[in-house]
Amino acid sequence: MSDWQVITGGVTAPKGYRAAGITAGLKPSGLPDLALIVSDVDAIAAGVFTTTCVRAAPVDYCRQRLQAKASAHAILVNAGQANAATGELGWQDALESAKALGQALSISPDSVLLASTGVIGQRIRMDALLSGIPNLVAALSDTGSDAAAQAIITTDLVTKSIALETTIDDRPVRVGGICKGSGMIHPNMATLLAFVTCDAAVSTSLWQQMLSRAADKSFNQITVDGDTSTNDTLIALANGQSRTAALTEMSPEAEKLEAMLTAVCQHLAKAIARDGEGATCLIEVEVQGTPDDTAARQIARTIAGSSLVKSAIFGRDPNWGRIAAAAGRAGVPFEQENLNVRLGTIQLMEAGQPLAFDRAAASTYLKQAAAGEYLKDDTVLISVSIGNGSGTGKAWGCDLSYDYVKINAEYTT
Amino acid sequence: MSDWQVITGGVTAPKGYRAAGITAGLKPSGLPDLALIVSDVDAIAAGVFTTTCVRAAPVDYCRQRLQAKASAHAILVNAGQANAATGELGWQDALESAKALGQALSISPDSVLLASTGVIGQRIRMDALLSGIPNLVAALSDTGSDAAAQAIITTDLVTKSIALETTIDDRPVRVGGICKGSGMIHPNMATLLAFVTCDAAVSTSLWQQMLSRAADKSFNQITVDGDTSTNDTLIALANGQSRTAALTEMSPEAEKLEAMLTAVCQHLAKAIARDGEGATCLIEVEVQGTPDDTAARQIARTIAGSSLVKSAIFGRDPNWGRIAAAAGRAGVPFEQENLNVRLGTIQLMEAGQPLAFDRAAASTYLKQAAAGEYLKDDTVLISVSIGNGSGTGKAWGCDLSYDYVKINAEYTT
Repeated sequence: MSDWQVITGGVTAPKGYRAAGITAGLKPSGLPDLALIVSDVDAIAAGVFTTTCVRAAPVDYCRQRLQAKASAHAILVNAGQANAATGELGWQDALESAKALGQALSISPDSVLLASTGVIGQRIRMDALLSGIPNLVAALSDTGSDAAAQAIITTDLVTKSIALETTIDDRPVRVGGICKGSGMIHPNMATLLAFVTCDAAVSTSLWQQMLSRAADKSFNQITVDGDTSTNDTLIALANGQSRTAALTEMSPEAEKLEAMLTAVCQHLAKAIARDGEGATCLIEVEVQGTPDDTAARQIARTIAGSSLVKSAIFGRDPNWGRIAAAAGRAGVPFEQENLNVRLGTIQLMEAGQPLAFDRAAASTYLKQAAAGEYLKDDTVLISVSIGNGSGTGKAWGCDLSYDYVKINAEYTT
Repeated sequence: MSDWQVITGGVTAPKGYRAAGITAGLKPSGLPDLALIVSDVDAIAAGVFTTTCVRAAPVDYCRQRLQAKASAHAILVNAGQANAATGELGWQDALESAKALGQALSISPDSVLLASTGVIGQRIRMDALLSGIPNLVAALSDTGSDAAAQAIITTDLVTKSIALETTIDDRPVRVGGICKGSGMIHPNMATLLAFVTCDAAVSTSLWQQMLSRAADKSFNQITVDGDTSTNDTLIALANGQSRTAALTEMSPEAEKLEAMLTAVCQHLAKAIARDGEGATCLIEVEVQGTPDDTAARQIARTIAGSSLVKSAIFGRDPNWGRIAAAAGRAGVPFEQENLNVRLGTIQLMEAGQPLAFDRAAASTYLKQAAAGEYLKDDTVLISVSIGNGSGTGKAWGCDLSYDYVKINAEYTT
């Protein structure tokens, strides 16, 4: 059905990109903590950032840069210190990081974008970062995506990476991505960071539109604990090295590219939800019948984020009442006579009334789905419809386990 | 400081009220499950109800009744079955319950209000309810509040009750209340139910305004898990039996009454938060410096509802980063340079910067506060200010413990 195929290579799968990840000494653990993604040529750059009022310096830095000039050559990412709540000194650290990398790459500091993740309130260990930059640049390679993916993670259990390829104008076009995150925020090791590369030729405004829409269908539709980070950052580069004709407005080719970009973002977003703190399975919620897609996404997000639904899935309990209650409070008006709820293929509620479903079978579905016996992944599927509207939307979350509480109560001081 | 004193008697403390609670056989456990509150004379009635689209029949019933006529003689409450998602048959059950009680009390069925709590999707055991009504009416007494409070609880660990008395026109005026709830929703044993009685003389519109404002400062400011119930109901009666002059608009006397009504609602709301599923302590969040009170309440609610903040408090971890991050995402714009965070009397963050506070002392504060060593209750106090505005607001929640997950994962099927 899809117009693309999965390929290897992550952010270095598209043409004209190199990446690297090294241990610079920012993380106390001694694990890799400094990553770099470079485009051989100046690339169109788009970004989506945290909407919170309490923001990290690199977030403000990227926003300003992209507002002034929607292109970039390089993305420098550190893990270990979040550079959030660090005031004017943190801002100066951001400027100095960009300047040092610009010099090492012989590019303007204005062409460097930045992202940080780690402990809130701590300044970046600038001596380690600055002395690491030469090694980082030396390590750049067109197979460096995995090393970069490794260097951006904090409490993640696994690295997250994907690359897809399609054909536009009879030429291969690729989109690759890496990301990190295992809670919406995991203070003091905060943040969702995602970096996407693409070798298509796209105008700046179209690329930003595509990225914003893709984020609305992916990263903005996952929830681990409902908390937003100070550092959340999604940056996407498009460098035109596929030598396809430039896309400047929506067209069949542009739609193809946007669909692939969306698929990359959804893959990465789901990987984050699945790696949610303490999660034993991924929960996918699909909603239909709303007046528009926004309403469907809102209901889906509310269900995926309900602590009661999440606890029930952890307990493998087919608790339709909690799903119905979460749908009802999502802020989208509907008649309860139109509410239908399904778990996998098992109908639990129809026209607002609970059905006499087989509880044992539904619980078995939950056990088997969470163990990965239905979809190729450990995915529990909840389907809800609330009317005859044409709106549809999906959201992803994870179950709420003892380990979530353990991780977050004992993370410490 | 307060203009009132605490008295005994709950909903039967105000003049002209009787109450009862009996075991009618609706709960499988055999515990009390049918409650009644009666005013000797027709009382002005106001209500605040769940805003969810998935509502129980008694909620729709009360809304219709109060719209047609803002007065009532009696409130009949059953525990065991929620009468939610029960369709037309559930609606008929509600009508029949009101009719039966009206006959037993020799009043119009229109003067009966209803509330249910229990398993969603189950119809009320009408045979048990109907045969219980004569015993219930026979049990009515002016010391029946505790029995009623006992009969409306489901998974609550304790009953919740309060009564206050003040003086208006040199005459005693009293407000009493009982409530139940140990999660915003605890499916399938759902719901927050609260019933308030008062012997002041108040006009219908003023009483409804007072109750709505009181609810905004109390029941709408507590969160256990962010989920809203199908059955949430707050009903307040004012029967004029104190023989004070009728209050028809705001005045010093009306303000005195509203302050006391608000205090009753806040006492009951905090009792619910403290009894939150798995909770080990109450969290009180006070916010100031916002443009208005609504904004302050919104920030307070977001902090009190953050899973990360709740987990940190359970771990007795003075994690200011999580408090700051929750404040930042509450939807109220502010400059992070103006953010101040305090835990008890310990300043954690000032002007957007973390302070070098004594972590051990802060953790000790959390341990001692949760153990009830500071306030008379087990209350952890979080104070946040975000600017120079005059807005203030409070919210209450509880910590997130292993037991919350246990209760909600293992509640079952």
